[in-house]
Amino acid sequence: MTKTNSSEIQDLRGLRDALREFCRARDWQRYHTPKNLVMALSVEAAELVEHFQWATPEESLTIDNAKRAAVADEIADVLIYLTELADVLDIDPIAAARAKIVKNAVKYPVPKEKP
Amino acid sequence: MTKTNSSEIQDLRGLRDALREFCRARDWQRYHTPKNLVMALSVEAAELVEHFQWATPEESLTIDNAKRAAVADEIADVLIYLTELADVLDIDPIAAARAKIVKNAVKYPVPKEKP
Amino acid sequence: MTKTNSSEIQDLRGLRDALREFCRARDWQRYHTPKNLVMALSVEAAELVEHFQWATPEESLTIDNAKRAAVADEIADVLIYLTELADVLDIDPIAAARAKIVKNAVKYPVPKEKP
Amino acid sequence: MTKTNSSEIQDLRGLRDALREFCRARDWQRYHTPKNLVMALSVEAAELVEHFQWATPEESLTIDNAKRAAVADEIADVLIYLTELADVLDIDPIAAARAKIVKNAVKYPVPKEKP
Repeated sequence: MTKTNSSEIQDLRGLRDALREFCRARDWQRYHTPKNLVMALSVEAAELVEHFQWATPEESLTIDNAKRAAVADEIADVLIYLTELADVLDIDPIAAARAKIVKNAVKYPVPKEKP
Repeated sequence: MTKTNSSEIQDLRGLRDALREFCRARDWQRYHTPKNLVMALSVEAAELVEHFQWATPEESLTIDNAKRAAVADEIADVLIYLTELADVLDIDPIAAARAKIVKNAVKYPVPKEKP
Repeated sequence: MTKTNSSEIQDLRGLRDALREFCRARDWQRYHTPKNLVMALSVEAAELVEHFQWATPEESLTIDNAKRAAVADEIADVLIYLTELADVLDIDPIAAARAKIVKNAVKYPVPKEKP
Repeated sequence: MTKTNSSEIQDLRGLRDALREFCRARDWQRYHTPKNLVMALSVEAAELVEHFQWATPEESLTIDNAKRAAVADEIADVLIYLTELADVLDIDPIAAARAKIVKNAVKYPVPKEKP
């Protein structure tokens, strides 16, 4: 990064700004079409899948520190491409998630408790 | 959602808390193993891919409002599963992204400008 | 299909020929670049994942007939796009699989049995 | 492979038989639940996507020999997991593809030619 200070990345907005600067400095914007970014995003999502493909669901809950660090790295990659995709399409990911949770709350109502 | 007010979702931490409450109210935690969550995440990533699979890179940059809304919905789904995955593994996604950007800045140095 | 008789699809070569005819009749070849085809392939792979995302590994082994039919449909979609991708790149998928199995046999030797 | 001769792999049935033997010799069947196999399949599909994520559609059509060999390797991996998935669920992939093409021919009729 040139001017971006990584310590400024405290939330999604800071991440978005750091990524804009990162790409501008490397002249990568021309590669960052939505078509290319969704491909890159899905590749990173698959790298997350790869970590758990042969594990049982139970085993996937108890990973060691080396695995946790590797998974954190892939989570970062997904979040980075997701932020770049949202930015290039002028979508606010937090607002989108908020709207989706409201929609999901209607779609999946809380079951009534037994008396 | 029972007690969670969607207006409280202003950042990833708020999103995480809302999702915790959402899942607890529906007793969904038992389904939310990392193995299952990475599968769900990759399915949502693919739904993003589906929106752009036959478009040219150029066409993917100029989508209409209906498409933008549909894409925002899928971005929300990816962010929701990513937040749940990070939460169940006790990973801070913003910290992970910050560390990754520092790593990437070393891996891909800014090209020297010509004199 | 115009002239292609589906009953002629008895193997991967017959499938390839039927798909060539299918696409030619609809003028779809221009969409079938490797970039687009790998996207479509990964979307269909994700539709397979979707069928099993919340199931336990054990449950995934015992699916009912409706689910089996739906899964067969997705397997068909993956095989169709894989055949089209291989065709457009002039790759023989069976030869590729044969070479890969030879490679895997070296990479993962059969464990010695105990005396 | 122990007894399987790779030269016997001439079609999907031969591939299926070779894979059965390969897994039996390594005691891998217990890992080959549909849930695990669809995960592995989607990871290999993503490795195909990775080869083309930054290429233009046009560039994706003209790959060099090294890239073609790498892509053939990934096509093999997808075909291998697809064959294993179909086998464990007792699905005939060619029959499924044949049925799907008949369905698609109805869904996407051939456009009438102008007089």
